[in-house]
Amino acid sequence: MEKYLSYSQEVLEAKEKGLPIVALESTIISHGMPYPQNVQTAREVEQIIRDNGAVPATIAIIDGKIKIGLTDEELEMFGNADNVAKTSRRDLGYLLATKKLGATTVAATMIAAELAGIELFVTGGIGGVHRGAQNTMDISADLEELSQTNVAVVCAGAKSILDIGLTLEYLETKGVPVVGFGTDMLPAFYTRESEFSVNIRLDSAKEVADMMRAKWDLGLQGGSVIANPIPKEEAMDASFVNGIIETALVEAEENGIKGKDVTPFLLGKVKELTEGKSLEANIALVKNNARVGAAIAVELNQNK
Amino acid sequence: MEKYLSYSQEVLEAKEKGLPIVALESTIISHGMPYPQNVQTAREVEQIIRDNGAVPATIAIIDGKIKIGLTDEELEMFGNADNVAKTSRRDLGYLLATKKLGATTVAATMIAAELAGIELFVTGGIGGVHRGAQNTMDISADLEELSQTNVAVVCAGAKSILDIGLTLEYLETKGVPVVGFGTDMLPAFYTRESEFSVNIRLDSAKEVADMMRAKWDLGLQGGSVIANPIPKEEAMDASFVNGIIETALVEAEENGIKGKDVTPFLLGKVKELTEGKSLEANIALVKNNARVGAAIAVELNQNK
Amino acid sequence: MEKYLSYSQEVLEAKEKGLPIVALESTIISHGMPYPQNVQTAREVEQIIRDNGAVPATIAIIDGKIKIGLTDEELEMFGNADNVAKTSRRDLGYLLATKKLGATTVAATMIAAELAGIELFVTGGIGGVHRGAQNTMDISADLEELSQTNVAVVCAGAKSILDIGLTLEYLETKGVPVVGFGTDMLPAFYTRESEFSVNIRLDSAKEVADMMRAKWDLGLQGGSVIANPIPKEEAMDASFVNGIIETALVEAEENGIKGKDVTPFLLGKVKELTEGKSLEANIALVKNNARVGAAIAVELNQNK
Ligand SMILES: [Mn+2]
Ligand SMILES: [Mn+2]
Ligand SMILES: [Mn+2]
Repeated sequence: MEKYLSYSQEVLEAKEKGLPIVALESTIISHGMPYPQNVQTAREVEQIIRDNGAVPATIAIIDGKIKIGLTDEELEMFGNADNVAKTSRRDLGYLLATKKLGATTVAATMIAAELAGIELFVTGGIGGVHRGAQNTMDISADLEELSQTNVAVVCAGAKSILDIGLTLEYLETKGVPVVGFGTDMLPAFYTRESEFSVNIRLDSAKEVADMMRAKWDLGLQGGSVIANPIPKEEAMDASFVNGIIETALVEAEENGIKGKDVTPFLLGKVKELTEGKSLEANIALVKNNARVGAAIAVELNQNK
Repeated sequence: MEKYLSYSQEVLEAKEKGLPIVALESTIISHGMPYPQNVQTAREVEQIIRDNGAVPATIAIIDGKIKIGLTDEELEMFGNADNVAKTSRRDLGYLLATKKLGATTVAATMIAAELAGIELFVTGGIGGVHRGAQNTMDISADLEELSQTNVAVVCAGAKSILDIGLTLEYLETKGVPVVGFGTDMLPAFYTRESEFSVNIRLDSAKEVADMMRAKWDLGLQGGSVIANPIPKEEAMDASFVNGIIETALVEAEENGIKGKDVTPFLLGKVKELTEGKSLEANIALVKNNARVGAAIAVELNQNK
Repeated sequence: MEKYLSYSQEVLEAKEKGLPIVALESTIISHGMPYPQNVQTAREVEQIIRDNGAVPATIAIIDGKIKIGLTDEELEMFGNADNVAKTSRRDLGYLLATKKLGATTVAATMIAAELAGIELFVTGGIGGVHRGAQNTMDISADLEELSQTNVAVVCAGAKSILDIGLTLEYLETKGVPVVGFGTDMLPAFYTRESEFSVNIRLDSAKEVADMMRAKWDLGLQGGSVIANPIPKEEAMDASFVNGIIETALVEAEENGIKGKDVTPFLLGKVKELTEGKSLEANIALVKNNARVGAAIAVELNQNK
């Protein structure tokens, strides 16, 4: 296994010194934003983690290795490449064996983080049960990963293009804790609120770390969703976002857009109809998650 | 892990002497019956297990510990408390870290039993796939637990408020044996029969223990459902119970009761319309399960 | 565990010498073909594996043992017996404890192969998500097995009596790689093509073996689907097969055939309406899979 992992100097030193480490995914770099904004944002997010007492480890598949922490050159190359495959659990063996470039999704980043001994991972939003999944069975592999891989995932909830209610049901069946960080309500990515309650509300990084430690000490496999609402200043109005999604869903139906094509279509519509504010919001919430995630990583490092 | 487990004197001695032990859940105490009937029933069920050659271990979460066996004082306190959280897999870490009171469901009791080295667990009925789950995805975490945690669960089948057919399909997909104890038909909690066949019929405790031992010796993770029909004298008529449920489902729909609110509504209606006979039946079937469970635990202790 | 495994002389020697081994299932013998054609085909398939540099291990449950490799006498007896139970994960413990005859499905053969240290398994087609499973939840245990048991499964795709699209969604959620062997399109058993793309295309046995080794070296549990199209000469026309299935589905509905009875009905109709050509095709594709499977087993033996 070790032969597939390649650590950056910064992460290697952090591991040797026993410092808290925060994993970051790379799909947001390759598929979430245009170059060079993606690289710049990645660096800013990493710096926020450093400023909050932890060490960032951006994860990507490069040249037959799972990179745990990217150098400046690697990040630049990766952010500018156009042949990067979105990598979930099922793709990891293939991409490593063929030495192709891979951007890790939530599922693959969790796997890599666990392999590297990293207990906390910061992302924007998790995948979930797609709208209409009662018929399409389109359910993100992220949810299965949360039930089996020992990494806490700080996010801003599940995107409202998903079916949030069904996502919560799936996580309940699978025994995954869904924590509202300072909130009783599950946030929905662009919005601070949704109509759904979280399973558990916790108000401090220490409480989150203590819950995770108890879970893992018991030997209960899997992670948890730590749902951290987008900052107020950047949050969108729920009725505005939901209106866009409802409209886009009708449009998708009218145009015969189905299955896997629906999600990128919805995301595109949200971007278009928010006049680019969705990207700003996305960046703001990831940075906010980086702050909270670093704090939790510090606590997880102390209660080991 | 051991730091979270706290054994009663009786269970500790049983473990030291290598006696057969039967796990019991505590949701039935906190959420299933009023005080003091709940405490009295719990004691009677424990005594039945002793009378049948095994040692009872009622499981609950108290003060940051998973109690394996409750003292009289603990049982009294627990049965009388009104701030007890229903505890499934996802809740265990949180309740232990925050030292809150937790009543273990089937899923959490299975986890605790396995951690404590107990192979057999007696309950009333397991959770399952809820009616309408094709749309709501409301599926009990008990089913996932049965597929991964090594504890045999003696119950009186799945409640007919659930969708029994879908519950059986789910268990089949997950590779969980469903055994009819002395019956070819899956019992449905209040009734001895249903329209569904079991996967395997076994007629003695030894046969059940031998099947489980072979499964576990092979390294096949998970438990099994040992479905033991309610005693004839206490059984209700299937058409009577199903009539109540059908009526209650219509009423729920008319009153806009949805999702998680449906199950307690149905259970309430069953109780109301059976004029309390459902509680009597519930007690009778648990006691009957305790007898069968103790016998299986004795056999499991011998074929180890 | 070892006490339940019984190796044939041929397989035992192969293990001692470190030769590549290919697992074969026995449901095709007991339930897939009439005697003596079933026994003859089984022997021919085994010989193809030998001719391609590997050792065949046909797997069946006999007299309380999992047989890894059948002697001529065992194969003859097994192929001629009429009391053979189809054995999936849930049935293994029961059949071993009661010493009944069991024919291993894809799921059970994967389990047995893993227990015996065999990494490659050749079959005809895997189980999947049944048509209408959105309502019936009828989903083969084979899919769960593929997500947890470390065996690569060479098959000719999923039968078009299944819902192939939903089967692919389920496998994606579960993180199972679906490889097209020399094809971008998932083959559908009797046909070389379907409307569905595979996740990964690989064109040589070595590439498949390298992907699997990387996956397993990472510690990623589970197998993969290696979908190998039926040879051109034997392939049926997709519109012909799909037409038969559509007609049969209507007929099933009209006759009130439901749930578990639909699949055997559809298979029967396919056989009837192809005037026995489906059996010929079935034999041809299994032999073709044996060739490819042996080649992959040879490569897996070299990259260990
Ligand atoms: Mn999907
Ligand atoms: Mn539920
Ligand atoms: Mn089925």
